[in-house]
Amino acid sequence: MNTDTLDKPVIGMVNGFDPSKAANLDPALADRIDRRTRLLGPAYRLFYQEPLTVDRGEGAYLYAPDGRDYLDAYNNVVSLGHAHPRVVEAVSAQMGKLCTHTRYVQDGILDLAEEMLPTFGGQIAENGHMMFTCTGSEANDLATRIAMHKTGKRGVIITSEAYHGTSHLTAGYSPSLGAKSPLGTWVRRVSAPDSYRRDVATLGAQMAAEVKARIEDLERHGDGIACFIADSLFSSDGIYSDPKGLLAPVAEVVRAHGGIMIADEVQSGFGRSGEAMWGYQRLGIDPEIVTMGKPMGNGFPVAGIAVRHDVVAPFGQDLRYFNTFGGNTVAIAAARAVFDTIREDNLLANAVRMGDAIRDGLRSLKDERIGDVRGVGLYVACEFVTDHTTKTHDAAIATACVNLMRKKGVLISSTGPGANILKIRPPLIFDASHVDRLLSTVEAALKEI
Amino acid sequence: MNTDTLDKPVIGMVNGFDPSKAANLDPALADRIDRRTRLLGPAYRLFYQEPLTVDRGEGAYLYAPDGRDYLDAYNNVVSLGHAHPRVVEAVSAQMGKLCTHTRYVQDGILDLAEEMLPTFGGQIAENGHMMFTCTGSEANDLATRIAMHKTGKRGVIITSEAYHGTSHLTAGYSPSLGAKSPLGTWVRRVSAPDSYRRDVATLGAQMAAEVKARIEDLERHGDGIACFIADSLFSSDGIYSDPKGLLAPVAEVVRAHGGIMIADEVQSGFGRSGEAMWGYQRLGIDPEIVTMGKPMGNGFPVAGIAVRHDVVAPFGQDLRYFNTFGGNTVAIAAARAVFDTIREDNLLANAVRMGDAIRDGLRSLKDERIGDVRGVGLYVACEFVTDHTTKTHDAAIATACVNLMRKKGVLISSTGPGANILKIRPPLIFDASHVDRLLSTVEAALKEI
Repeated sequence: MNTDTLDKPVIGMVNGFDPSKAANLDPALADRIDRRTRLLGPAYRLFYQEPLTVDRGEGAYLYAPDGRDYLDAYNNVVSLGHAHPRVVEAVSAQMGKLCTHTRYVQDGILDLAEEMLPTFGGQIAENGHMMFTCTGSEANDLATRIAMHKTGKRGVIITSEAYHGTSHLTAGYSPSLGAKSPLGTWVRRVSAPDSYRRDVATLGAQMAAEVKARIEDLERHGDGIACFIADSLFSSDGIYSDPKGLLAPVAEVVRAHGGIMIADEVQSGFGRSGEAMWGYQRLGIDPEIVTMGKPMGNGFPVAGIAVRHDVVAPFGQDLRYFNTFGGNTVAIAAARAVFDTIREDNLLANAVRMGDAIRDGLRSLKDERIGDVRGVGLYVACEFVTDHTTKTHDAAIATACVNLMRKKGVLISSTGPGANILKIRPPLIFDASHVDRLLSTVEAALKEI
Repeated sequence: MNTDTLDKPVIGMVNGFDPSKAANLDPALADRIDRRTRLLGPAYRLFYQEPLTVDRGEGAYLYAPDGRDYLDAYNNVVSLGHAHPRVVEAVSAQMGKLCTHTRYVQDGILDLAEEMLPTFGGQIAENGHMMFTCTGSEANDLATRIAMHKTGKRGVIITSEAYHGTSHLTAGYSPSLGAKSPLGTWVRRVSAPDSYRRDVATLGAQMAAEVKARIEDLERHGDGIACFIADSLFSSDGIYSDPKGLLAPVAEVVRAHGGIMIADEVQSGFGRSGEAMWGYQRLGIDPEIVTMGKPMGNGFPVAGIAVRHDVVAPFGQDLRYFNTFGGNTVAIAAARAVFDTIREDNLLANAVRMGDAIRDGLRSLKDERIGDVRGVGLYVACEFVTDHTTKTHDAAIATACVNLMRKKGVLISSTGPGANILKIRPPLIFDASHVDRLLSTVEAALKEI
């Protein structure tokens, strides 16, 4: 059980613009990118070989300043579509009434917590609490602090190419940030549940065995295990959704060693999988902590955690938590509008239907270069390989496809340690016409490559 | 040079509601607080002995559901006043147009950065960059990551009762979170610049000497110095604004040892001091990194850093930074409205006038219990002592005053390691009538105590 089996990541950011190739761009765009580098500095990245300028959004579409439309099949924040009227109205009305923090008594935040907590089921529904932050990074950072405080340990176990945030702590267990982003000495990785290359029936047991070995190693180094944390759809690992029940044996091992299970629902929550409000509900676990973010306010900065009472009790007794903007009245208004819309508009059922239609359409292309089409709900992976036997990553096709589709007016991206997997992640309001445009554009792009 | 001279903090949160005293409350309020504890859990805190319910804000006023008005002389987020029409309009309009992130090309974020960078002066104005986060905690966390990466060291030096954030990293150097919130092993503290108890003329040299000793200790332990970080108005230490030029000798020592100066402007920036847009500009330094937050969007979650090019260059080369909501189009619209309003409405000059009027008024009370009135611009400290010779903290008077004023309809708080200092921090739009109401209420409260 060593780390040789872990996937080796490609250098740089998947689908990131390479500034050294700015010479190929339209001079006006190149100038704007120069200005951007001058003002925002060297740590910012743009998408696509030819970065996209947008200035308006509506529903599933983004619009360039010249009015050209782009079907947005990638944005995992505006799950209700761009500029959703109900969210815009909720934010505008509340901004005009009161925008303040949680150290005054307010009912809105309590009403939302009361509506949300039952949706987690299990012990959180029974006696859990909601806590609000502004970003998914803050949510994961807080969850990890709580887990460390509760267990008195500091080890964190993650999957091979995990991404969990951009704070010092969460970047320390986000290997997908690249080989030069240092992992904490208290961090261990296990293989991603690669359902394309390994036997799905044994993935759970395999992961549990790896987790057990990592825990023993953490204990041997005096760190012990604070928590196991995973994105319930393993986005940056390559998007894996099989088998259901994957994490049940993992949870057993983690708990046997006193550790805490954290379900990172920042990407997979709020109905993304279609089959459940929360991605972990497909994976056979009742986590101690659930973290959430991105689509929670349809673009308004709001995120949070749901946590079992007994897990946060010692943290709450010894410490306190205050986040100036986290759960402020406007954030709550935005989150409330989103949460209600997801349920009232039956967006989970829509995600299943549209996601299945996309997967069916991709499979029906019968393109030899496609090794696997997978995912659940509106999270779709389409993996390119050089051949179906060795299943060697073919990043060139994925990169060409993503950039050609962008030229043709459809926005997606790619992912995975080999950067060879199309990442298709449309808003939950995607309809049949959107699916048609997406599929016909994939087909057209692949014909040209 | 040991840590015995550091102030010993009181237990618990200054001006926090004590749930064990809920029995004294109106039953309806007690029920709502119970509900809150059930839904939000044990880590949340409320203000005041009798927590306040608010449901509307306008200008310098908050309103309870029954319509009663409270003069808000404490809220450091809505610097332009509650529900400022220009910010409400900017946020509403941009929410309805486009709310998306920084990986597409946009001009708004660049225009704002271009307007802001010159206001820092020095090397940041010359070649610096803006980077955007959602919260001040994230800004300080990022600044510290950049400092650690640039220096290859991890030591952080702070003042005695500093507060810099709520992420794992920043909480690790925020002693004001309480004795049970563990400080990092790589953290050292120096005495706050207590202008009331020590000779103002030597405060800078004293702090520099303490910093030097702490750096040598960090080096002896193999950590070295990454950065010195201070709130430019030393809020949680007790609010100190004298002498000007305080940090010049500190910066000299820090840089001589390869460390970086971070000015934490989350509380003191955006004109709070009145004398300058940024608090550090009074303190004689040209910091490598400036962090900002709270009032930046007048309640909309937006924060960020300004950083010298050479300091962030290695970070940008080896790593990258992306914050899903940080600097999104709506955050930028809010920040732009705030930044323009501060300058167009001459709010710095107003802060000086109104702040001086408050300090003059407090001094003219000639109340024996008041040992010191200090601060600059609209950040005012009023310190209670048992006598003027020993200058012993009198927390009871401060606590009684804050809570009596809340009953009388004026909101302030207290601060400092002895919890004996009134913290008065009104919005920058405070006018003479607000000052009158504030002062007459302080006077009335002190008469009753």
